[in-house]
Amino acid sequence: MSSPFTAEHVAEWASFGTKLKGKPTPKQQLAAKERKAKCSEMKKRLVKELNDPNWTEKKIEKELDRLAEEGGKVAERPEYLDGPSGTRDFYPPEMKVQNWLFDKFRETAKSFGFQEYDAPVLEHVKLYERKAGEEIVDQMYNFTDKEGKHVTLRPEMTPTLARMVLNKTNLQTGEVRLTLPLKWFSIPQCWRFETTQRGRKREHYQWNMDIVGVDHVNAELELLAAACFFFKSLGIGPEAVGIKINSRAVLEVVLAKHNIKKGQKDEDGGDIFAKACVIIDKLDKIGGEAVTELLGGIGVNAESAADILQALQAPTVDALTDHIGAESESVEEVRRLFQLAEEYGISDYLVFDASVVRGLAYYTGIVWEAFDRRGELRAIMGGGRYDRLLELYGGEKCQIPCVGFGFGDCVIMELLKECNKLPEFQGSGVDYVVCAFSPDLYGSAAKISAQLRACGCSVDLMPSPKKNAKASFKHADQTGAKRMVFVAPDEISRSVVRVKDLRTKDKNGEAVQVDCPVDKLDTVDALVAEAAAK
Amino acid sequence: MSSPFTAEHVAEWASFGTKLKGKPTPKQQLAAKERKAKCSEMKKRLVKELNDPNWTEKKIEKELDRLAEEGGKVAERPEYLDGPSGTRDFYPPEMKVQNWLFDKFRETAKSFGFQEYDAPVLEHVKLYERKAGEEIVDQMYNFTDKEGKHVTLRPEMTPTLARMVLNKTNLQTGEVRLTLPLKWFSIPQCWRFETTQRGRKREHYQWNMDIVGVDHVNAELELLAAACFFFKSLGIGPEAVGIKINSRAVLEVVLAKHNIKKGQKDEDGGDIFAKACVIIDKLDKIGGEAVTELLGGIGVNAESAADILQALQAPTVDALTDHIGAESESVEEVRRLFQLAEEYGISDYLVFDASVVRGLAYYTGIVWEAFDRRGELRAIMGGGRYDRLLELYGGEKCQIPCVGFGFGDCVIMELLKECNKLPEFQGSGVDYVVCAFSPDLYGSAAKISAQLRACGCSVDLMPSPKKNAKASFKHADQTGAKRMVFVAPDEISRSVVRVKDLRTKDKNGEAVQVDCPVDKLDTVDALVAEAAAK
Repeated sequence: MSSPFTAEHVAEWASFGTKLKGKPTPKQQLAAKERKAKCSEMKKRLVKELNDPNWTEKKIEKELDRLAEEGGKVAERPEYLDGPSGTRDFYPPEMKVQNWLFDKFRETAKSFGFQEYDAPVLEHVKLYERKAGEEIVDQMYNFTDKEGKHVTLRPEMTPTLARMVLNKTNLQTGEVRLTLPLKWFSIPQCWRFETTQRGRKREHYQWNMDIVGVDHVNAELELLAAACFFFKSLGIGPEAVGIKINSRAVLEVVLAKHNIKKGQKDEDGGDIFAKACVIIDKLDKIGGEAVTELLGGIGVNAESAADILQALQAPTVDALTDHIGAESESVEEVRRLFQLAEEYGISDYLVFDASVVRGLAYYTGIVWEAFDRRGELRAIMGGGRYDRLLELYGGEKCQIPCVGFGFGDCVIMELLKECNKLPEFQGSGVDYVVCAFSPDLYGSAAKISAQLRACGCSVDLMPSPKKNAKASFKHADQTGAKRMVFVAPDEISRSVVRVKDLRTKDKNGEAVQVDCPVDKLDTVDALVAEAAAK
Repeated sequence: MSSPFTAEHVAEWASFGTKLKGKPTPKQQLAAKERKAKCSEMKKRLVKELNDPNWTEKKIEKELDRLAEEGGKVAERPEYLDGPSGTRDFYPPEMKVQNWLFDKFRETAKSFGFQEYDAPVLEHVKLYERKAGEEIVDQMYNFTDKEGKHVTLRPEMTPTLARMVLNKTNLQTGEVRLTLPLKWFSIPQCWRFETTQRGRKREHYQWNMDIVGVDHVNAELELLAAACFFFKSLGIGPEAVGIKINSRAVLEVVLAKHNIKKGQKDEDGGDIFAKACVIIDKLDKIGGEAVTELLGGIGVNAESAADILQALQAPTVDALTDHIGAESESVEEVRRLFQLAEEYGISDYLVFDASVVRGLAYYTGIVWEAFDRRGELRAIMGGGRYDRLLELYGGEKCQIPCVGFGFGDCVIMELLKECNKLPEFQGSGVDYVVCAFSPDLYGSAAKISAQLRACGCSVDLMPSPKKNAKASFKHADQTGAKRMVFVAPDEISRSVVRVKDLRTKDKNGEAVQVDCPVDKLDTVDALVAEAAAK
């Protein structure tokens, strides 16, 4: 968006001073604190003045920093230089972090024998119209294409998975033409269109793991074990993260007592049980009173609502059983899950929580939600059983049981930062920087680069040499390269190149240097080791 | 889309018989040939009858196969079970191939010291409105979002890269706040909206490699070397693939002779040179006559057009120099590129072709295009120098030289198939399939799976046991697992599990089996080796 700020705004911002770099002295710390307070005040004022949800405090700060840096000249900056609202660019440093996280997702999935799949980011809107009281269609990034089709950037992956499975299913018989169970995973980008909330992203990536074709709790257990394996692999233990477990089937028993029965349609044709779940899911956010009111809207009287809310507070499976007044198959299932989790070695992560129902209408059985134990972040992951979704799409023969979870890329990153579990992402991963002393040696430098690459090395051939050798070495050092090859006339006339190993020091603490014959570049390692030992 | 076929259609299709599986006998081969001819005839007829560009022969065949398989019952199939027109789903087998190809892209990029970046698939339409006679905006997958913003699924990545670099640039001074040169790569999904052509996809992935901040031919050389390295790594030699090289700067000299000068605007405000390039790019498709006519439309008379067309046929750099009548800096640059390519060891792939200009308006210097030597496929990759694009977006101070290429994922796959260079993608990559003999042993099986995973193994714990041990072994064998662990009561009572190594045979040609203590699962390799040697 073009900048709404005047030269006066920028001058005011600039008058607070600039951000500190490096470690501050106590005096600087004080100044920084004062600056922060002034900036914060101005940002709050501008948020009010602008009254535009796109101009969050963060964005205002970024824009004013930029304008101040550019000398206060408020030029017309084309809006298209920003990506669309609520989207992220991944520059190489951010990309490295993302790749690291996605590799962890993939490693876990592979450890558990899951196969990767993918599908286009665009889907038909119809795929998400499930008539179940969810707000998902309102919040979709949907549009009408040039042929009049109603399409959307996918809000979530589960309906796509259902569609893909059904495309390999005989809809007349329900027979799936793939060997069941399927254990599939994907890391799709998902989109939503929210106009109301400030500073929230419109896209995120979501690791999806699903098991198709297993109608019992072993499938839930496997998914939960995978999530715990993932947390462990990041160094996040059960003291930092928990997974709340509940069962919609248990909730079904509770609600049935109050005449809310599954499969029962309301006047809009929506499933009244699913609607109740969507309402109950809001308990944390809107509180008991508001939930009671919303339940009233679907025909639940106050007394029933009170009883339901009490059931949701049951601290253990036993307490809930007592509340219901009888054992049921679905309670037994939850018990079995906890029992098996013990043997699987993941029970430290799991807690029973009768109030967890998840906001998606399609869940039918056990549901879960990972949370940070300090209670500061949004849900880290959510999942559950959805045994009727494929039937909804494919018809009555397609009663194919499914369980799955979705694990976003944002909250886990916040958690990793808080727990100090993000590794350092320094260095470019380059083995060699190759530099030609002068333009006439560029061909030789290219040839040497090709030879090093043929040995499996990553080589950054510098297209233009720096001003001098020292500057070139500095460049190589800063990018985190292991070695620098300097292609200079003297050495080339002797058919060798000078290799400086930036990470291996000799006895005097200097970087080891060796001359390596250009036709024996595969021997550099040995030469360096030899020189280092001298 | 819902099926347009009647039960009669399906019955006719089914009457031709079904597709053969496995290796056919000579008699079957004959029948298959007859079937193919009948099917082909029917498909052609239906294409005419339906007269709908969405119903291509391929799609008709797929739909009729499906309907025939489903017993001819023509049920109403919801349109949303197909993804949007022209998009691809990646089931695990296709995903494996795609991951393999992308890994090759990434390995090459890393070999050359390029850093990965990414950006959202959605961009502002403005980013692509360059007023240069390209058809790119017409063919975009663009729409107006709920806030009235004109956005589009990105048709290509280069404008996004330009935007990202400019967001790290002081637009007032042109100073880039990143260490130049940038060597960046990405593998974005790109979209277009074509209504006219049949069977063409609306999305593809495109490997992009760019160098920002180098104003001379060493940058082009580096990108070409990377492309050749990639071809070599796939086993595709210069006998199968070539890269045509030309220079728009040379073409500039040719066109200047006929008064088409760079920077000269026509009445629409478009750059007349860029427009001429876009026209000339069509030569292969529409022929010399049509090009002459189009050039007439931007004010080039027939005589000039003839001279231009002749120049485009120059077989060598020397011949083109002769045609121009003088050496020029830009010709010199092309010569230097070919010279350096020789030293870099990639000249076998390169050919000079004066007619290559590429269809994008923003190219300013050397351009290239990879092609299959048999001349059967579309361009495999295209690239070139675009020194003015950042200036166009960021203003006159942003004269930041760039070179890059885009390498699609579709044509290279066709080529790999034709050349028989695709590896086999068998097996699930699973090390162990773990199976519990009975439900009460599932907890033990889970525990053992966790232990094997802790050793770094990929473990497929079977949620439900098969009917019998044999069926379980068959499942493990079919999925390509290396070993099968069977958790049975006898062994568990002795604190061991039976491990069958499906890929290691003993002297009698039987799969090796060992009993391994459950608390020493990290010794399985040794036990298997020992048993195999017996």
